Amino acid sequence: MSVPTENMVVFSDGATEKISREPFPASKKIYVQGSDPTIQVPMREIALSPTVAGKNSLEQHDNPPVTVYDTSGPFTDPDIGIDVRKGVPAPRTPWILRRGDVEELPAISSRYGREREIDPELAPVRFERTRKVLRAKAGHRVTQMHYAKQGIVTPEMEYIAIRENQRCEEALEMLKQQHPGQNWGAKFPAAITPAFVREEVARGRAIIPANINHPEIEPMIIGRNFLVKINANIGNSAVTSSIEEEVEKMVWAIRWGADTVMDLSTGKNIHETREWIIRNSPVPIGTVPIYQALEKVGGVPEDLTWDLFRDTLIEQAEQGVDYFTIHAGVLLRFIPLTAKRMTGIVSRGGSIMAKWCLAHHKENFTYTHWDEICEIMAAYDVSFSIGDGLRPGSLYDANDEAQFGELQVQGGLTRRAWEFDVQVMNEGPGHVPMHMIKENMEKQLEWCDEAPFYTLGPLTTDIAPGYDHITSGIGAAMIGWYGTAMLCYVTPKEHLGLPNKDDVREGVVTYKIAAHAADLAKGHPGAQIRDNALSKARFEFRWNDQFALALDPMRAKSFHDETLPAEGAKLAHFCSMCGPKFCSMEITQQVRDYARKLGLEGGDAMEQGMEEKAKEFRETGSEIYQ
Amino acid sequence: MSVPTENMVVFSDGATEKISREPFPASKKIYVQGSDPTIQVPMREIALSPTVAGKNSLEQHDNPPVTVYDTSGPFTDPDIGIDVRKGVPAPRTPWILRRGDVEELPAISSRYGREREIDPELAPVRFERTRKVLRAKAGHRVTQMHYAKQGIVTPEMEYIAIRENQRCEEALEMLKQQHPGQNWGAKFPAAITPAFVREEVARGRAIIPANINHPEIEPMIIGRNFLVKINANIGNSAVTSSIEEEVEKMVWAIRWGADTVMDLSTGKNIHETREWIIRNSPVPIGTVPIYQALEKVGGVPEDLTWDLFRDTLIEQAEQGVDYFTIHAGVLLRFIPLTAKRMTGIVSRGGSIMAKWCLAHHKENFTYTHWDEICEIMAAYDVSFSIGDGLRPGSLYDANDEAQFGELQVQGGLTRRAWEFDVQVMNEGPGHVPMHMIKENMEKQLEWCDEAPFYTLGPLTTDIAPGYDHITSGIGAAMIGWYGTAMLCYVTPKEHLGLPNKDDVREGVVTYKIAAHAADLAKGHPGAQIRDNALSKARFEFRWNDQFALALDPMRAKSFHDETLPAEGAKLAHFCSMCGPKFCSMEITQQVRDYARKLGLEGGDAMEQGMEEKAKEFRETGSEIYQ
Repeated sequence: MSVPTENMVVFSDGATEKISREPFPASKKIYVQGSDPTIQVPMREIALSPTVAGKNSLEQHDNPPVTVYDTSGPFTDPDIGIDVRKGVPAPRTPWILRRGDVEELPAISSRYGREREIDPELAPVRFERTRKVLRAKAGHRVTQMHYAKQGIVTPEMEYIAIRENQRCEEALEMLKQQHPGQNWGAKFPAAITPAFVREEVARGRAIIPANINHPEIEPMIIGRNFLVKINANIGNSAVTSSIEEEVEKMVWAIRWGADTVMDLSTGKNIHETREWIIRNSPVPIGTVPIYQALEKVGGVPEDLTWDLFRDTLIEQAEQGVDYFTIHAGVLLRFIPLTAKRMTGIVSRGGSIMAKWCLAHHKENFTYTHWDEICEIMAAYDVSFSIGDGLRPGSLYDANDEAQFGELQVQGGLTRRAWEFDVQVMNEGPGHVPMHMIKENMEKQLEWCDEAPFYTLGPLTTDIAPGYDHITSGIGAAMIGWYGTAMLCYVTPKEHLGLPNKDDVREGVVTYKIAAHAADLAKGHPGAQIRDNALSKARFEFRWNDQFALALDPMRAKSFHDETLPAEGAKLAHFCSMCGPKFCSMEITQQVRDYARKLGLEGGDAMEQGMEEKAKEFRETGSEIYQ
Repeated sequence: MSVPTENMVVFSDGATEKISREPFPASKKIYVQGSDPTIQVPMREIALSPTVAGKNSLEQHDNPPVTVYDTSGPFTDPDIGIDVRKGVPAPRTPWILRRGDVEELPAISSRYGREREIDPELAPVRFERTRKVLRAKAGHRVTQMHYAKQGIVTPEMEYIAIRENQRCEEALEMLKQQHPGQNWGAKFPAAITPAFVREEVARGRAIIPANINHPEIEPMIIGRNFLVKINANIGNSAVTSSIEEEVEKMVWAIRWGADTVMDLSTGKNIHETREWIIRNSPVPIGTVPIYQALEKVGGVPEDLTWDLFRDTLIEQAEQGVDYFTIHAGVLLRFIPLTAKRMTGIVSRGGSIMAKWCLAHHKENFTYTHWDEICEIMAAYDVSFSIGDGLRPGSLYDANDEAQFGELQVQGGLTRRAWEFDVQVMNEGPGHVPMHMIKENMEKQLEWCDEAPFYTLGPLTTDIAPGYDHITSGIGAAMIGWYGTAMLCYVTPKEHLGLPNKDDVREGVVTYKIAAHAADLAKGHPGAQIRDNALSKARFEFRWNDQFALALDPMRAKSFHDETLPAEGAKLAHFCSMCGPKFCSMEITQQVRDYARKLGLEGGDAMEQGMEEKAKEFRETGSEIYQ
């Protein structure tokens, strides 16, 4: 039996599960080509129906389709055949090979990995890998940061520039023609160009997690001058779970919008499970290597060694893991500070390292071997997600000495990693009340030199187990606005047990809300286009368009249909919430019609006609009773 | 057939429903007596189990009970027999009569009300009222603001002071003894004394909605220097719904934490329905009288008249409604401004008034008759909730000219109402992105002279129908922190249909989270006690205590039990989320044990032992690689 892990997906509805491939309503997958035919950036285009005259609009007109950022990969493209036993397409392969700085290895380098490879018992669960493992040629660094520092715009960077822009200029133009004189979103100064992407990566302000052994990914970027991203955690729940089930967990998470997925699998087949996930994942995969290392020593932290940990890093890097959480900031001297806390150490990685340190009375071995770790990361382009092993597990412990002590050390580790051209993000809390959130962001920006921040929530109160997607969604939206680049989701089962598929969907959608609310508040170009299109559809009673534009079209439609299931109701001028007589939008339409009947065509004429009255009022001081 | 209304509760599980009276786990209702035996302030006391040595604690000790604010009324007190046909106890009756400024009326004053009273067909649905209707004696004002201005501390004010303090000083004292040297919450400067309550009400910064014809209420206060409150909307869904069902909707909402309930019932029996609700409600009831007025004229806004509206106000005031939403700020001159909007007018009350104004080309009659309305309010102590009829229905319309024009008018109406000693709060938006929320609060404080703000959300994005409790919960927490006094809940069915009981529970709990997160961020005295107690229980594996302290104990327990249902698991040192080997809290415990074994008893000794190492590090500059 494997040990269940934090935030993993379990299936309440049967052991094996087909991969979810149903396209979203009214949506089609489109590809925008870059400067080179190998650069094909996927997006989801949502078709809208025309506006009908008389439904809160004076004249009929078409509505432009809305293009949205799409994390779901080839699974939602009906033109791509998928066989999880072969994996998904690998768009990055030509780009990686073209650079001429990698070599194919004759065999995998990890001792452990080789043992697994020749174990005949594992044959039934082994993914048959057809590509050779890649590694940087001696003397080369193959990280996106390295290229960026050299002034090279990689295909990954160009891809990201196209992806982040989401054809928003086109959509903005069409909306401006319809509603001249309005401010349609767009307050963000920076245009997302390939050159801008390169600058941000070179500066360390953004990372592109993209292991050279994970050519299947559709490149994405994590940085505060880009769209806010979210991560979902998955992990296997039982040794007997089928391959399809493991892959489906990842597919399910990206379907709802996860930008990266952390595989926190444990148990005896995690090496094989991870291979299946990576070969089928179009999004970057993160792991916490110490979990697997601990499995290898039978769950006894004291028995961990640097050598074993190092072999685990190489094993996972050669499989294609895109970022590693490493708790190198948990230093011996911080551990006593946690004894006074309400909730001690709540990070698993942190508590494992703490136990090792105390047992040996030695400094954290990931800290003392940081340079060697950086060299490994640079040879495969694995990014760091420097763990916050001392993050607060309760409001009481928020922003304390242990937490901020570790954050300062994260800064030192970040700067050192940059010397090796290794990409870095920093993990953050945790449980933090609203008024103490901003300090986290400010200190991280200062101490970690603007490296991307990657936070878990934060949870803004401790009193709502069962609703911690919400307690944390509040904090996530705020810290995203303040500058956090990626938000690690929290499901309703947090603190209580294993999330099932419904919980994962709830958690991912909640975090898409938080990330999008942050994008809007930051003024990301085009972020508001989807909101505007949905609101316009709502006002014009285009129900199916409203559903199609929603983050979760299926839920929106099913909620509506609970009380008004008839197909005719989708065209109705009201919903069951207010009924026909009380629908304010319907009344507004009547207001407009009435105004027209009086000859007050359009807003301008009405305004003119009533201006005198308004002027009169203002002249008497705008007070009712003088 | 009645017309369904916004945010009402429907029952998916059968037409008649028993009143929910099950007490919460480990909880008992206690009463704290004031200066007078008639002042009995109800609270919920949650008993906790002792801490066991070895479970993340060195020694066994008791945990003090935690007392929480309790909105659920007599329904959760098993010692009180309840017959909805008689109504709940009326604690305020002696206080109201003692003041000597009211008179009993021989009959109700409203024409419409008298017609209903003698209609033999209504006998089966009529509540048999035993108390006479009260009204201020000629020349008297019976509002809490009037008393406050006279320097009188009413029993209602004393009751509120006790209720807001929640015995937090006691609890704080006990926690301080356990963890000396820690800052246990309490940063809020003002002690909540009866004198402070009086000052805030006199200043107009807080209101005590408390109609003299609603003696059943357990007094509560709405103001930004008190706990943030939440409102839930209910309303009848069908004429045939039973009396128990109507009462149950209100009981269900307050059970989960609604501080006030707005009855948005429509349909032909709303007069009778409202009577049942008020007679059984321990929380203030709000209404939007224009809805009923519109029913009386067959749903045709143009046919509304001042006379009919006035009769409706008196009808409802004599039933005991505690606050009225009146959209007096929707002025003729603002209406053309909404024609340019993305979503026009989305407030039902606002759109009804707008239509009336345009139809007659006259100014809003609630605006032109404001003085008369104030006189009615002052004679019964009905508070104003001045409606925001032009609130934005989409991000696109947020903070626009129409919205802020109306808000300025609300300010003028507020100051005028204060001249009549009428209590006032102002309603606010709506749909507003995060970065534009603060401006709403700042302008409201300035323009409306710090009268309490009462907002709907705000929703921070438009793209998540089906999840609008979350899009709005984010905005609600933030605006609560900035100073909003009461948050109107939004359910997952917002924009889509009628909420059922599950939706109401989800909406109320989400808003309790938002309100509590705001209390924490504002530093309300004692707000963090419950968080601390829950986190301590979590760390010490006291699962049942963790559930009991949760906002929704039943959900927390059921989520936990999905994966670990055995009773023994409630004492386990782990949950299914991480399993026994990966539980960080369990490992932390081992860290503490290990440290003790090494003779490093407690935090101080450990710290001492390791201080040298830490000093060394600091002296070399706190950088890893020099």
